[in-house]
Amino acid sequence: MTKTANSMWGGRFAAGPDAIMEAINASIGYDRRLAPQDITGSLAHATMLAAKGIISDTDAAAIKEGLVTVLSEIETGKFEFSAALEDIHMNVESRLKELVGEPAGRLHTARSRNDQVAVDFRLWVRDQCDQADEALAALQNALLGQAEAGADWVMPGFTHLQTAQPVTWGHHMLAYVEMFARDRSRFADARKRMNTSPLGAAALAGTSFPIDREMTAKELGFDRPMSNSLDAVSDRDFALEFLAASSICAMHLSRMAEELVIWSSAQFRFVKMSDKWSTGSSIMPQKRNPDAAELIRAKIGRIFGANVALMTVMKGLPLTYSKDMQEDKEQTFDAADNLMLALAAMTGMVSDMTANRESLKAAASSGFSTATDLADWLVRELGLPFRDAHHVTGSLVAMAEGKGCDLPDLTLEDMQSVHAGIRADVFDVLGVENSVASRMSFGGTAPEQVRAQVAHWKEVLG
Amino acid sequence: MTKTANSMWGGRFAAGPDAIMEAINASIGYDRRLAPQDITGSLAHATMLAAKGIISDTDAAAIKEGLVTVLSEIETGKFEFSAALEDIHMNVESRLKELVGEPAGRLHTARSRNDQVAVDFRLWVRDQCDQADEALAALQNALLGQAEAGADWVMPGFTHLQTAQPVTWGHHMLAYVEMFARDRSRFADARKRMNTSPLGAAALAGTSFPIDREMTAKELGFDRPMSNSLDAVSDRDFALEFLAASSICAMHLSRMAEELVIWSSAQFRFVKMSDKWSTGSSIMPQKRNPDAAELIRAKIGRIFGANVALMTVMKGLPLTYSKDMQEDKEQTFDAADNLMLALAAMTGMVSDMTANRESLKAAASSGFSTATDLADWLVRELGLPFRDAHHVTGSLVAMAEGKGCDLPDLTLEDMQSVHAGIRADVFDVLGVENSVASRMSFGGTAPEQVRAQVAHWKEVLG
Amino acid sequence: MTKTANSMWGGRFAAGPDAIMEAINASIGYDRRLAPQDITGSLAHATMLAAKGIISDTDAAAIKEGLVTVLSEIETGKFEFSAALEDIHMNVESRLKELVGEPAGRLHTARSRNDQVAVDFRLWVRDQCDQADEALAALQNALLGQAEAGADWVMPGFTHLQTAQPVTWGHHMLAYVEMFARDRSRFADARKRMNTSPLGAAALAGTSFPIDREMTAKELGFDRPMSNSLDAVSDRDFALEFLAASSICAMHLSRMAEELVIWSSAQFRFVKMSDKWSTGSSIMPQKRNPDAAELIRAKIGRIFGANVALMTVMKGLPLTYSKDMQEDKEQTFDAADNLMLALAAMTGMVSDMTANRESLKAAASSGFSTATDLADWLVRELGLPFRDAHHVTGSLVAMAEGKGCDLPDLTLEDMQSVHAGIRADVFDVLGVENSVASRMSFGGTAPEQVRAQVAHWKEVLG
Amino acid sequence: MTKTANSMWGGRFAAGPDAIMEAINASIGYDRRLAPQDITGSLAHATMLAAKGIISDTDAAAIKEGLVTVLSEIETGKFEFSAALEDIHMNVESRLKELVGEPAGRLHTARSRNDQVAVDFRLWVRDQCDQADEALAALQNALLGQAEAGADWVMPGFTHLQTAQPVTWGHHMLAYVEMFARDRSRFADARKRMNTSPLGAAALAGTSFPIDREMTAKELGFDRPMSNSLDAVSDRDFALEFLAASSICAMHLSRMAEELVIWSSAQFRFVKMSDKWSTGSSIMPQKRNPDAAELIRAKIGRIFGANVALMTVMKGLPLTYSKDMQEDKEQTFDAADNLMLALAAMTGMVSDMTANRESLKAAASSGFSTATDLADWLVRELGLPFRDAHHVTGSLVAMAEGKGCDLPDLTLEDMQSVHAGIRADVFDVLGVENSVASRMSFGGTAPEQVRAQVAHWKEVLG
Repeated sequence: MTKTANSMWGGRFAAGPDAIMEAINASIGYDRRLAPQDITGSLAHATMLAAKGIISDTDAAAIKEGLVTVLSEIETGKFEFSAALEDIHMNVESRLKELVGEPAGRLHTARSRNDQVAVDFRLWVRDQCDQADEALAALQNALLGQAEAGADWVMPGFTHLQTAQPVTWGHHMLAYVEMFARDRSRFADARKRMNTSPLGAAALAGTSFPIDREMTAKELGFDRPMSNSLDAVSDRDFALEFLAASSICAMHLSRMAEELVIWSSAQFRFVKMSDKWSTGSSIMPQKRNPDAAELIRAKIGRIFGANVALMTVMKGLPLTYSKDMQEDKEQTFDAADNLMLALAAMTGMVSDMTANRESLKAAASSGFSTATDLADWLVRELGLPFRDAHHVTGSLVAMAEGKGCDLPDLTLEDMQSVHAGIRADVFDVLGVENSVASRMSFGGTAPEQVRAQVAHWKEVLG
Repeated sequence: MTKTANSMWGGRFAAGPDAIMEAINASIGYDRRLAPQDITGSLAHATMLAAKGIISDTDAAAIKEGLVTVLSEIETGKFEFSAALEDIHMNVESRLKELVGEPAGRLHTARSRNDQVAVDFRLWVRDQCDQADEALAALQNALLGQAEAGADWVMPGFTHLQTAQPVTWGHHMLAYVEMFARDRSRFADARKRMNTSPLGAAALAGTSFPIDREMTAKELGFDRPMSNSLDAVSDRDFALEFLAASSICAMHLSRMAEELVIWSSAQFRFVKMSDKWSTGSSIMPQKRNPDAAELIRAKIGRIFGANVALMTVMKGLPLTYSKDMQEDKEQTFDAADNLMLALAAMTGMVSDMTANRESLKAAASSGFSTATDLADWLVRELGLPFRDAHHVTGSLVAMAEGKGCDLPDLTLEDMQSVHAGIRADVFDVLGVENSVASRMSFGGTAPEQVRAQVAHWKEVLG
Repeated sequence: MTKTANSMWGGRFAAGPDAIMEAINASIGYDRRLAPQDITGSLAHATMLAAKGIISDTDAAAIKEGLVTVLSEIETGKFEFSAALEDIHMNVESRLKELVGEPAGRLHTARSRNDQVAVDFRLWVRDQCDQADEALAALQNALLGQAEAGADWVMPGFTHLQTAQPVTWGHHMLAYVEMFARDRSRFADARKRMNTSPLGAAALAGTSFPIDREMTAKELGFDRPMSNSLDAVSDRDFALEFLAASSICAMHLSRMAEELVIWSSAQFRFVKMSDKWSTGSSIMPQKRNPDAAELIRAKIGRIFGANVALMTVMKGLPLTYSKDMQEDKEQTFDAADNLMLALAAMTGMVSDMTANRESLKAAASSGFSTATDLADWLVRELGLPFRDAHHVTGSLVAMAEGKGCDLPDLTLEDMQSVHAGIRADVFDVLGVENSVASRMSFGGTAPEQVRAQVAHWKEVLG
Repeated sequence: MTKTANSMWGGRFAAGPDAIMEAINASIGYDRRLAPQDITGSLAHATMLAAKGIISDTDAAAIKEGLVTVLSEIETGKFEFSAALEDIHMNVESRLKELVGEPAGRLHTARSRNDQVAVDFRLWVRDQCDQADEALAALQNALLGQAEAGADWVMPGFTHLQTAQPVTWGHHMLAYVEMFARDRSRFADARKRMNTSPLGAAALAGTSFPIDREMTAKELGFDRPMSNSLDAVSDRDFALEFLAASSICAMHLSRMAEELVIWSSAQFRFVKMSDKWSTGSSIMPQKRNPDAAELIRAKIGRIFGANVALMTVMKGLPLTYSKDMQEDKEQTFDAADNLMLALAAMTGMVSDMTANRESLKAAASSGFSTATDLADWLVRELGLPFRDAHHVTGSLVAMAEGKGCDLPDLTLEDMQSVHAGIRADVFDVLGVENSVASRMSFGGTAPEQVRAQVAHWKEVLG
């Protein structure tokens, strides 16, 4: 639609007002996606109306059979959507009338499009929370696979993209497992909070028909009906909270993607992406552009952009329903689709990538990465105060730098020339393997700790 | 695509890696829209290659004939786009090869997809600047029509949505003419700044072929070639500046739309929207929901959201091309489409709406709106210092409030009981018509000033 | 600092590199605010170091006494902060050294500034969650007061800012109680999720000292230590989630503020703000500008702006700590301060405002607001299908509109001329009082339902 | 203020309503910064009032002398600002009254705070445009220094952070010169567009006093008075356009900063930051964290955040002045200060950094970076169609990869085994120096082109 829209509104108003109004007003171009939710909601409503005697059982049966037919027509592509009928609700209702006649007109008793769309969209977003959870679990599993394989592979731990201390590959992978666990937890909280039913709020004030909102809520898997009908039709928190959780998740993905792009460079060579997730070049066969990682890194743009868009739309809207709120769906659809796509692509990439153990270890072993270990040894073994320990370490690093070597390459005599108390066992802490093995504090980078965390996560992820 | 994407990536990885990679990587789903620009760019490139003897005239002729055919196939809907061919460039080139054979392979000499897409997208955005300008001129004309008709219709001037001083309808309409004039000026500046040609930057470093970048630049309507090839393929400022200008324009639209929504309320009744731009209700025939105004008000969300999205994408990208930049197009397309749509709808609404002169005047006449005029009269006619003038005015307003009337309803005796020097001619400044007529400073609300501005703008708009 | 910064960097580089570097690098100008958290964290760390025998009890005692002194100096304004010492951690440590000498150097054993700042900032944000909860509860109480007083005051329920159906003042107030309840729930979830301790992650890899992270976690009120040291020093989710929750809360405030601004207009006159929350005018004593409401409405700008700012900062940062992350604090401080201020102001405004019952009822009684009730009566009492009921209602509204009256002003004969079956008891549903009373569905606008919700909330809020 | 605000509003409303209202309402905490602009505006207004006979020359003289005294008191820190007087305008006027008595009351004739603040803020933003221009010119000069020194230093040109083709250091530096030139151009356009005077719009409607708006406009350096008084007091486009231009500029800075961070890594070693712009570590003396680059990279967060904040504030505000607009200043001040600081820091860093020519060249010489040159040679010298040329090149790269060498390391025999026509002069294009020298298209990376651009820019920058 967008493409034709452009040709229509551009230039000297080729389009008449009717066409422009239809284009800005109609939502069927995108809300058709809510068809399953719309029909599910209507089925629950019809069942309740009959149970409460508001419509007859015969009418309810006809309505329900008709709705099932409509859904089937939509799923098989036979349904003809009409922009003149504006939205999914009217499209379904209109077809239902063709199919079952007069009873179709009774379905809308004690209901309005305001609570209907609130139900449909909420069901859709709730389902996306579930999908995000599943996709995140898959990604955690892929990371766990890497972590388990490389629980003791040494690599540089960076701050400021400068080598700081040696860590393990498994430990680094597990850092992302933690982030994605928080994301799952956020989606779970959002899902729980949104799981209340607006159905029965009607236009905005509730209804005088003796409906049973508990019944429809239960039927649709909601925990309970919403407690205020004005709020029920005005509330889009559920979409905003989904977008906020998605944005933070996309931020995590952008960080990991950035690392993969940097690690894939000729200068780092920490990982090799599989062909599936790279693009090559017909003349440079060695080239393996990390396209998927770059695209994942970029997704935060449109996902957070959607968050900004909907927040901006909702700013300052008086109660209850305003047509502005129709802009909620496209943003949420686009963000959800791109999040799921990015999660799937990241999962595939992580599963298929190969860490270059030699490059990782070589990088970890340079840059005096165990200087902290030396200082800690001086504190622990010789009882030096920190300040003195730091001073001694600094002198030794300077000496090594002057000799063009690293710390473990100094001789014991070199060391003792700076501090006479240094003993040969100091060398035990200068090797990167020993360094990481020593970081035994809970959550630390020692392979033993990493393996414990892997075991923990395997249990959690089942 | 989005819809199917959702069903594909959701759940337990029904889709294989290939499908996921294709989905995240392919751009043909949206960049097909650049087909005319892509072919225009290729025609200019082929002409130049032949002129410089880099390819033969025969090859150039074959290429150009083939490209015209491809464009015609696309315009008539006969072209079959292929996602496997990723993007519009490869789709066109592949079809060209089918049509003309070997010469098609020579078109890409001294060019790369990096400068090609930069040309295509820049041409598209440049065209949108022109479309925005045209649409804004149409809206200014609609506002001018309202301003001319109501140059002397009195209405309340608001601050804090509280009546402050009387103004005229024409004056209020002209305030928006000014805003949209600044918008046009911003689009014009953006267009001028972006009007330089990236073509010939090749992959990123320029080329060793003896190309003539001035020639292709001129052919494509650019002012000159860009001066740095790395910058040429990395730069997306033109899209960001278009989005920034569009965002400010959408902000102006949101303010006017907000006013129209408020003015349409039963409590204000300042304007009546035509049926074309409202939606009604089958049971409440008097209801005229200002749907178009609400949707226009909401458009700032997605337009500014697109600005946020692309700015976020571009943050921190090293030179030159990164795949992240592929996310530039959908955001810009969507923002441009929605801006044009909002402008067209606002133009239609403004043209068709009817101001309610009686409501406007009644509202302007209440709330002691001419208290400032009274104070000014005391300063000007009686030589009172401001402080005293304010004090006297305050007392008179309090007196009127006590009597439940407005200022002009007080008697001369009432007035003289507060300040003996007040004369009967004070009543001349208390009427709202006189009040507005007195605001003769340049750009003020006096009908004479409004008419002068209307005349000025009619000349400008031609 | 900002102000001087401007004069320093502007112009021809009056400032040397050292001054510029200090200005961009130092954080003490704002992170001094974390002093209480910093000292609390250090006290816990020192206690644990001694308990585990890593430092002596004597040293620990000296350190703890010194820290208490430092805090006292800061709280009483006697502390001299130094920009040369960069941040709060170094300022505190440096002063500690002056006070207690050598033991001060042992405090930093098995710790780094990376986990220290993560602890400090997390404690601060956690405290803000508690403050937000308290402030929201106060606002809910103020709303509840209004709801209880006006459980049966009739007012127009709006959609599209057009009168739709009558509702009650209490019902409208309760809609906001629901929104703020969701906000509280979001802050509670965020608090719970962030309540894990980064302390002991050290620089990034954990430590070889035999620390007890459970002990410090418990001491600081955390549920448990974070499970991955790389994640612990890289994570700013807690700040982002706080900002996201704050943004949605600010959106709710902006909606309510918008309503208060509109309701305060001369055209609506639904509420009268107290003098405390308005600003007046020396010449227009009747003027009562809703300044506080406008400022509250605007706060979403900077609060959501802070969210955008920090999300943008975090995009694409490789692990672990990067200096970019120093930008987290000012944004979060400013957003939190402004949220608390807006909540306090809204609470005051709501407590003090006076609803204008007559205006509310008059507005509710116009505009055929009970047309839906009429249609529902026809369905319920005469068994008409909806379509016919709507048709009859439409004809009656048109008739009333023609006569310049509202529905209840028609005679029974008028009504029967459209549908012979209409009986006199139809008038029962046409009055706004009866209309609202009939909306007895759960969460509906009937005063009985409103009173039930008020009772429920009084119990919840205690 | 923020800090105390926090302690004040938190908890159980320790603060009374008055304190809360003052805190949310008063702007003197930040708008005191506009004192010079405020007084400049008043001086121009007073001169005009006297010239038009609206006030006496004696009064004007007294006012002007008093204003000069006030400014001097402010500049020397003797002025006592009062929050009770709300804003800078009232603070200045109140002090003026103390100094000169009654004439002070005449200064506000034909003026209001609405047009006064619009003038002040516009003058301030205009000045920032000039400061940004100056700071950007300084940065361009620093880049030009690097470009001139390294016009022929070979380095890898990247796409996807993968080596693509060799380019020159000078060429890369000049890419940023181009970006910052566009930034300057944007600030210049914004300055021109904002350079119109709101003074004389009064509260919103203009005035009945015979003022001369051209005169005050000219006095304040504006091009002309604004043409619509309602627009004059409602418009904040100038601040938004400044923020948009600043955001794009900050985006450019973020890209360059990202490159500097990556280039400073142990794996790249392309540049060495000077000590002035790095921070070290007491134990790892080799460590040189690129703190300044990281902080500059992060500044896009708060600068674009400010843009989002103000755009959000302005969304949907009805005309004319609303108190919401008071939120414009802090955002703009903070963004401007941080932009100037980032520009100054980047300029210092670029001036002081040292490129590592050996690392750059070594990186450029690996990765088959001249494969494109080989393909181009086959097309140009042997007349091969592109497709064949690519195929041959691919085979040769594969052969080199197999042998573990790069393209220039193959023998002529090796080459001829793939394509018999290859001659010894092919080796001329395989060296990186020759490769870059051959890119002679306008704006290409050839040192000759780079030197031409350097010469051009030196002339432009003066």
